[in-house]
Order: sequence, then structure tokens, then C-alpha cells
Amino acid sequence: MTRSLLEMQRTRTPVEIPSILENLSVVTFLKEKELPCDPKVRSLFSHSTSLHLLQAQKGEEKALIPLRIGVLFSGGPAPGGHNVIAGLFDALQQSTPEGALFGFFRGPEGLLQEKYCPISAQSVDAIRNTGGFTLLGSSRTKIETHAQMQLAMNTCNKLRLDGLVVIGGDDSNTNAAMLGKFFLDKNCPTCIVGVPKTIDGDLTHAHLPLSFGFDTACRVYAEMIGNLCMDAASTCTYTHFVKLMGRSASHIALECALTTHPNYTLIAEEIALKKQTLRNIVNDIADLVMQRSALHKNYGVILIPEGLIEFIPEISLLIKEINGLLGQGEPTSSFEIIAKLSSSSRKCLESLPESVQKQLFLRRDPHGNVQVSLIETEKLLAELVSQELDRRKEQGTFSGTFHYRTHFFGYEGRSSFPSLFDSTYCYALGMGAYTLIKENLTNHLVAIDSLALPIYEWSVQALPLLSLLHMEEREGQQKAVIRKTLVDCSKKAFLHFARDRDSWRLEDDYQSPGPMQFPEYFDPFFFLPQSYLNEHVRNF
Amino acid sequence: MTRSLLEMQRTRTPVEIPSILENLSVVTFLKEKELPCDPKVRSLFSHSTSLHLLQAQKGEEKALIPLRIGVLFSGGPAPGGHNVIAGLFDALQQSTPEGALFGFFRGPEGLLQEKYCPISAQSVDAIRNTGGFTLLGSSRTKIETHAQMQLAMNTCNKLRLDGLVVIGGDDSNTNAAMLGKFFLDKNCPTCIVGVPKTIDGDLTHAHLPLSFGFDTACRVYAEMIGNLCMDAASTCTYTHFVKLMGRSASHIALECALTTHPNYTLIAEEIALKKQTLRNIVNDIADLVMQRSALHKNYGVILIPEGLIEFIPEISLLIKEINGLLGQGEPTSSFEIIAKLSSSSRKCLESLPESVQKQLFLRRDPHGNVQVSLIETEKLLAELVSQELDRRKEQGTFSGTFHYRTHFFGYEGRSSFPSLFDSTYCYALGMGAYTLIKENLTNHLVAIDSLALPIYEWSVQALPLLSLLHMEEREGQQKAVIRKTLVDCSKKAFLHFARDRDSWRLEDDYQSPGPMQFPEYFDPFFFLPQSYLNEHVRNF
Repeated sequence: MTRSLLEMQRTRTPVEIPSILENLSVVTFLKEKELPCDPKVRSLFSHSTSLHLLQAQKGEEKALIPLRIGVLFSGGPAPGGHNVIAGLFDALQQSTPEGALFGFFRGPEGLLQEKYCPISAQSVDAIRNTGGFTLLGSSRTKIETHAQMQLAMNTCNKLRLDGLVVIGGDDSNTNAAMLGKFFLDKNCPTCIVGVPKTIDGDLTHAHLPLSFGFDTACRVYAEMIGNLCMDAASTCTYTHFVKLMGRSASHIALECALTTHPNYTLIAEEIALKKQTLRNIVNDIADLVMQRSALHKNYGVILIPEGLIEFIPEISLLIKEINGLLGQGEPTSSFEIIAKLSSSSRKCLESLPESVQKQLFLRRDPHGNVQVSLIETEKLLAELVSQELDRRKEQGTFSGTFHYRTHFFGYEGRSSFPSLFDSTYCYALGMGAYTLIKENLTNHLVAIDSLALPIYEWSVQALPLLSLLHMEEREGQQKAVIRKTLVDCSKKAFLHFARDRDSWRLEDDYQSPGPMQFPEYFDPFFFLPQSYLNEHVRNF
Repeated sequence: MTRSLLEMQRTRTPVEIPSILENLSVVTFLKEKELPCDPKVRSLFSHSTSLHLLQAQKGEEKALIPLRIGVLFSGGPAPGGHNVIAGLFDALQQSTPEGALFGFFRGPEGLLQEKYCPISAQSVDAIRNTGGFTLLGSSRTKIETHAQMQLAMNTCNKLRLDGLVVIGGDDSNTNAAMLGKFFLDKNCPTCIVGVPKTIDGDLTHAHLPLSFGFDTACRVYAEMIGNLCMDAASTCTYTHFVKLMGRSASHIALECALTTHPNYTLIAEEIALKKQTLRNIVNDIADLVMQRSALHKNYGVILIPEGLIEFIPEISLLIKEINGLLGQGEPTSSFEIIAKLSSSSRKCLESLPESVQKQLFLRRDPHGNVQVSLIETEKLLAELVSQELDRRKEQGTFSGTFHYRTHFFGYEGRSSFPSLFDSTYCYALGMGAYTLIKENLTNHLVAIDSLALPIYEWSVQALPLLSLLHMEEREGQQKAVIRKTLVDCSKKAFLHFARDRDSWRLEDDYQSPGPMQFPEYFDPFFFLPQSYLNEHVRNF
């Protein structure tokens, strides 16, 4: 791969670090407080595992010993991953030149199959501040079974690793927690350290304000949404229905709404809370189109979170029923399934456009479930709104025009150039991960806090993975997994949005943030995601 | 609309101008050479219309008189349009403060309905270097009939306009040429000046190397394509099929290929030239997937120009037949149409996925034609390739995996922040348009040439609209229209690509250009589109 001009510039740009990471030989961790934990989760783990939040502090200078560390990417890419490796590498180099960093290819797969490479200064210099996980690749392979954990341990033992850094989301860090427990049980000396990665923004905690990649992905989508807003206001012709990646949670839709001010944004968690039906949503949007049309605005921009469909009560029930019927042995014909549905689910299915009915029946994942993410919710809503407006036209209550275009923004935001925030944040996470291993801390996630302060004042913490776990039903069994953080409609990040959104419906307060810039000096206020500023900085 | 931080920064950034535009009172136009013209076109116009290419030169200082100028946007938005207005406004202000600029709302519609506003310094200062046509809006209204031309003339007379600047693409400038002729015939003193706008890059001429907006739109799409390339190389899981806007011509796909190096790029003009069938294309892509899979690369990126489907011989014939049958009076059922198709077209139709068959029958434009742009070519190709690979799997010749994702990039590139090039180019076009009106030149397009030289050496020209026209069948009649420039497979812009593309198939030479930057100093080599550099600067 050859590097573009901007990549070459970015690879040469140094990254600012928190002052606590300036001299690694004095970093020590102090117990901050004990965190709460579900007793069922607690009972799964040996009681030797601490539940204390640990804070990095400057202590006495200690001689640093050469460490051997392994690192891997797990799951979908998120911008900034390369800088975690750069931070880790630089910390290792700064402490003792005899240390070694090994990268596992294609995530956990490389760990299981002993596919890795030593990471050199040259390879790190080529990836600083660049997007993607191209240095090592990634995969969704999981380390779950006893045999897999044994293989992973064998690799760590063979390489004599002092630490293994897992860069991953909620599922990957759940796996990391289990692997860490296995290592402790087997007296394997390799520390497991998690790094919070996910563009979806759903891996957070009271002491983990943000996962990396969220800021950048939102900026990439917001650039495109801002452009669509400008296009809508220029041609005055189209209503753009924009679906945004983000799995179940609507954090991305919320953040993009805060930065671009579209006319309407669906927040799935709010819809579930208010028990809104698909009919309610369609009518709401049709009302909006009519109100705008009365102002001669036959255009608009509407944001839709990818996970929406699971949060609409009647569709969520329908999907559950179909999955249940599909799961019962042999593949069943769609007629048979229809016959076995409850009458309310049959009615719900009937109300959906044919193309969506097909998607519900045809596309199943390896476990036989409907693949919710492949359902084109943006087209579903646009078509239903169009039908509703046709009905109103016939009734004589609507006389405007309604042309729509649909979009889905997702993959283009996962491997983008990391934003200034994610570049800085990830580099600090990488260095922070080193300090955890140096202090022999295992089963912790490295967390950076106080992000609204100047970078040199950011704090580095070790957050016990245990404190993130809760019990949840997965494939019919109760399992300890990391809880996905959904949008909380009682929190300030949402409340700011809820206060402002009404004025965006009719007035076109569109904002076009434009392409991400990498200036030497920047406005710290625009350095962080807007939902973070709402939650932690702004008064309400 | 409130402005984003970057918009506020950009509105305050001054734009460099060609030295010829530094002192407007000395600008004069000299005849360069007579341009060729279709005699049939020539005979439609009064012989007083000149066919000389005119070159702006520094002459004797002349006192400038206050001018009254009207301006409108016509057709789809293109980044930089606001700077045309800024350039025009500043030129008018610099010459005499008594001049006046009027903006017509929603394009030609505003001219016909006398909907306009005087453009103030304040409103211009708020739109400098910003995207969209939001200052005035735009529309696809055409001025074609005698009655419409009369209305347009009435408005110009009422406002006592010395000039009317039409910012538009090929169709809009065709209309401008006809309106200019009408004004000449009726002794209306308003000069008509066209400004070459289109992201599609299909409005060019020997003396008009580029239309504005093309550079920016390609950079926006290339940012996203580069991100998808990095994503493909990170997860090693998906083949991305990316359709790109651009109407019939494949200029955008070519330019994006040159900047991102995807594994495969379809150039519609080449496919027509080589008379490749849909089967050929599908087999070619399936071969590529197999070759890459043999190297353990079960991923890739493929670019598809929006106009492709019209250039595939058998589909182009099928569409023609369907349009013919649909045009014959009453709406016909799809069964009736199928019965009346030629046997080869019926066979072609049968080979297409059901969803595309439906799109061919269901969606018609106001003239009853199939709406080619709404056919999801990216899904068509992906599905056919998937079917072909399934066949090969059954035959035992393919054992890899093939997962695809489809994308369409279009609307998000039309109203983006203009690139440094388009900002500079458009500002010069706006100032240039003023100089044409000042010199009483009508029925000309303002053209800037020598773009590979430093900005201060750029040349300003007046290109007779007549020289761009040729005779073409439109709705069954021979009409004088501006010829769309397609990709010429014998020219260097294409030949460079053709030379390099083979090495991109298997080797992953992906380039991620990243988000557009607006630095104070920049590399002039990256200032211009790559296809321009290939054609006019690089040796082959």
C-alpha cells in the first residue's frame, strides 16, 4: 500500500500526551475506590480479582525492566487503532530498548494459530495517525471454549509475554475478561489489558466516558450529512432518509444530530421508552413533511439509527417469533411461518413493504436468526411515509410534493483517518496499556478520563473488567457479558438534543461541519464529541 | 442557517486570483482564433454571432461604468457555485460602487417569475468558500418556449440588466445559448454569459479543460472510497461495490480510480467500445474475485459509474425497446411488454435479477422513459457476480468466500465545501464573467485555462457558446445542444489509468486520500484533479 500525501503528513505529526505519561518510570497505580459488581458475576470470578478503580499517579522512580507484549485488534475497525499500537510501542521503547512488541494477525485468530510478527520502529512510523487496522488486520473470531483458551495461553507462554493487549468492543472485552480469568486460574503470568474500541459508542461506564473511534466515525458521517443538508436546502427537492451504523444503540445518530441539526432524528431508545409503533413513527414523519410543505419546504433530512427496527415493539415481537420458528429444526417455508405467527405479528408483517417481508424471511445469520442489520430500515420508512402521504393526497389533506432518497453511512466511517481527538486519545490509551502491564495489572481496561481538561491533565486509570460485566441471556443461557450502554433519555447528552430538536423541524438550522481538519492549533471546544460536551461540560 | 466552525474559517479566507484580473479597468478581449462549428448549428444562429475564441489581455486603462448584473444557478448543485457569485460581486464592487447584482431565486424559475433579491456585501461575506447553492437555490426549470423567453426578457428589461450570468451544465448552457440568440434577435441589451458547472465533468472543450465542482465531488467520493479500501484491507471480509454519480460519462469513476487505486473500475465508454456484454463484465469480476481469493484476499473494492447500464449493448437495446413500447399510448402491462420484446431482449431481461426487472418496468420519468439512474447497478452486478460464484462453487472451481456490500455516492458530493481548486477556480470564473459583460460580450461561456500554471498565470477566455453546440436527436427531433464529453479511451487521462490498473487488481495498492484539507500552503501537484494532470501535464 502506498501512502497518500495526507497520510504522509499525518504519520510525521507528533501527538501530545498527558503529563502522567511523560516519565513512565514514576507511574504507579493507587486504589481510588471499590466499584459495584453484580454478585452473580462476582461469584464466577476468583475472589482475588480486585474491583478497585486504580488511578495512575506519579510515584517514586523505579528501574524499568524489558517487557514482552502482544497486541491484537478484535472485531470491526475503528479509527485510531494504529495509534494504540504506536503508543504502546513508543512506551516500550522509551522504557527499555530490549522490550519487544508482537502483533497478532487477524485478531484472536492469530493468537490461536500463532500467526504474529515482531513490530518494528519502521512499521510503526508508517502507521502513526492513519486509519484502518491494516497493520495486523482484524477478525470476529472469538476465544470462548476451554480448548481455545488453552491455545491462546500456549502462544503467550511460548512468546513469554508479560502482557496481551486486546483492542476491542464489548464482546471482545468480555472474551478478554474470561481469558484473563483462565490465565489467573492457570497461573499464566501474561497480564490481559483491554482497550475500549468501538465506533458505536456503546462501551462506556461511569469511569470510561468514551470508546475510541466514536468521535471520528461521527465526524465522517456528519460531514456527509452536512453535505446532504446543504444539498436539500439548495435543490429544495428531496427528503433524505439517512441510516447510520451503530448496532443497537443510537449514540451515533444522536451525536450526528447534535453536529448537523437535521429536521428529524429517530432515537431508538426513546421510541422503545414511549412504546411508539411503526405507524406512530410513519405518521410523525408524514406530519413533518406536511408542515414543511406548508412552508414551501418540500425537502428535508431525517436520521435513522441502524438498530431502530429492534426497538419498535411490534416489529421486535415479529422478529422474535420468526427467529423462534426458524430455530425449530428444518428450514420452514415462509407460508408455514406466516401460518404459525400470532395474529398481531401477522398483521404487522402484512403492513410492511414486500421487499422488507423478504428480508425478514430470506436473510439469516449462521445461528438462523434474521439479520436485522441488513434490513433496509431507511427504505422501509421512506416507502411507508410515501404511501401515507399518497393516502393523505387522496383524502385531500396533502397537496405538496414528496421525493425521497435513501442513504446508509457505515463502513466509510470505520477506517477513516482518526480525528485529532482519536489520534491523541488512542496514543494515550496505548501508552496507558503499557503502564498497566508494567505494574502487573491484569483483567483491566485502560481508561482515560477528564477529557474536557487540557490534554496534559488527562488522567489514566485501570478499570477492572469485572465491573463492566453483568448477567444476560445469550442463546438461551445466562452469561456474564459486558453491558452495552444505550442512549439514556434522562441524561444530559440526550436532554440537550431533546430541547433543541423542535427548532430544527421547520427552521432549517442545518450545520455543515465539513471535512475533518488537522490544524496545528484548534478550538478545544470542537475537539470532543458534542454528546460528551453536553454530558460532562455544558450546563443544562 | 448557522455556520459551522470550519465554514466560519473558510468564509474569512481570501482567494488568490489570476494577475489578469487584478486591475479590471485594463482588461480587454482579443480574438485568438476562429473555432469550428457544425454548419447546421451555424445556420440556426444569426451570422453576427462570432465564433472567435477571445483571450483576456491587459490593454489601455478605461473608465468603468456601473453595471447591473443578474445571476442564477441552474440544475444540480456543484461545489464552488457560491464563489462564482462572490467573484462577480467583488469585481462589480471594485469597478464602481454603483453597480448592482441581482440573484434570481430557484434558478430560471426566479427569472420567469421575477423572484429575485439584490445581493449585498453581507450576504456575500457569509457564503465565501462555502458549499451548496443555498444563497439562491436552484431548479431544473428550463427556458425553452417563446413565451418563456419573452418572460425572461421582460425581467431583464425591467431590471435594466447589462448582463445575465447563467451558472449551469450542458443543458442549462444550451438554454442560455438559445436565450442569448432570442435576446440578440429582439435587440435586448442584456449579455448572456455562461459559467461551466457540473460535478460530472462532461462539459469540456479544447478550450475548456474543466467544469467546476468536478474536483471537489471527486475528492469527497475519493475520501469515502479510500476509507472503504482501508476497511476492506482491515477486515479482509467484504467486496465493496461502489456506484458513483456522473450521469452518462465515467469521468468521476476514472478520477476516483486514479486517486484511490481500487481493484477494479468499470469505465462505461470502454465497455461500449469493446462491445462487452453484461455476462462478460460479470465473468471478469468473478475471475478477479477468484484470483484474489487464491491469494487469500477475499475482499476488494470495485467502482461502477452511474451511467454504466446504458453502455452495455444488450441492456441499452432492452431499455430502448421498453421505452418504445411504453411510449405507445396507454400504460401497458409488463406481460404485454414482455410479449412484444425481441427475443434477444427478452432473454436479456430474463437474465436480470427480479428486483432490476421491476425497476425497468415500474419507474418511469415524466416522459414515460425508464429512469436509468434509479436502477441499482451496484446491486445488480453484486448479485450476478454472487450467482456466478455460486455456480463455480458447485462446479468445484471456486472455494473462497464472497461477501459483498453495496454503496452509492452521489448527493453527498454535490454541496460539499469546495476544494481549494474549486474555490479559486470559481472565484476567477465569477470575476471573469464580469469582464465579459463589461466588454459587452454575449453568448459566451467564461473559461479559465492554463490551470497547471501558478494561479496568477491562469488565462481568462470567452468561448462562444455556439462552438459547443452540435445537432442531436432529442425526443424525436434534431436539436442544437451542447455535446456531452464522454471519457475518450484514446486520451492520456484514460491511458495512464489503463496502464496502471492491472497492478491494482491483486496487489492492493489502495490509496486513502483522506478528508479535504484547507492549508495555507499546499502542494500544487495535488491541487488539480489527477485526470487533468494526466491529460495536460504528465508525460506518457
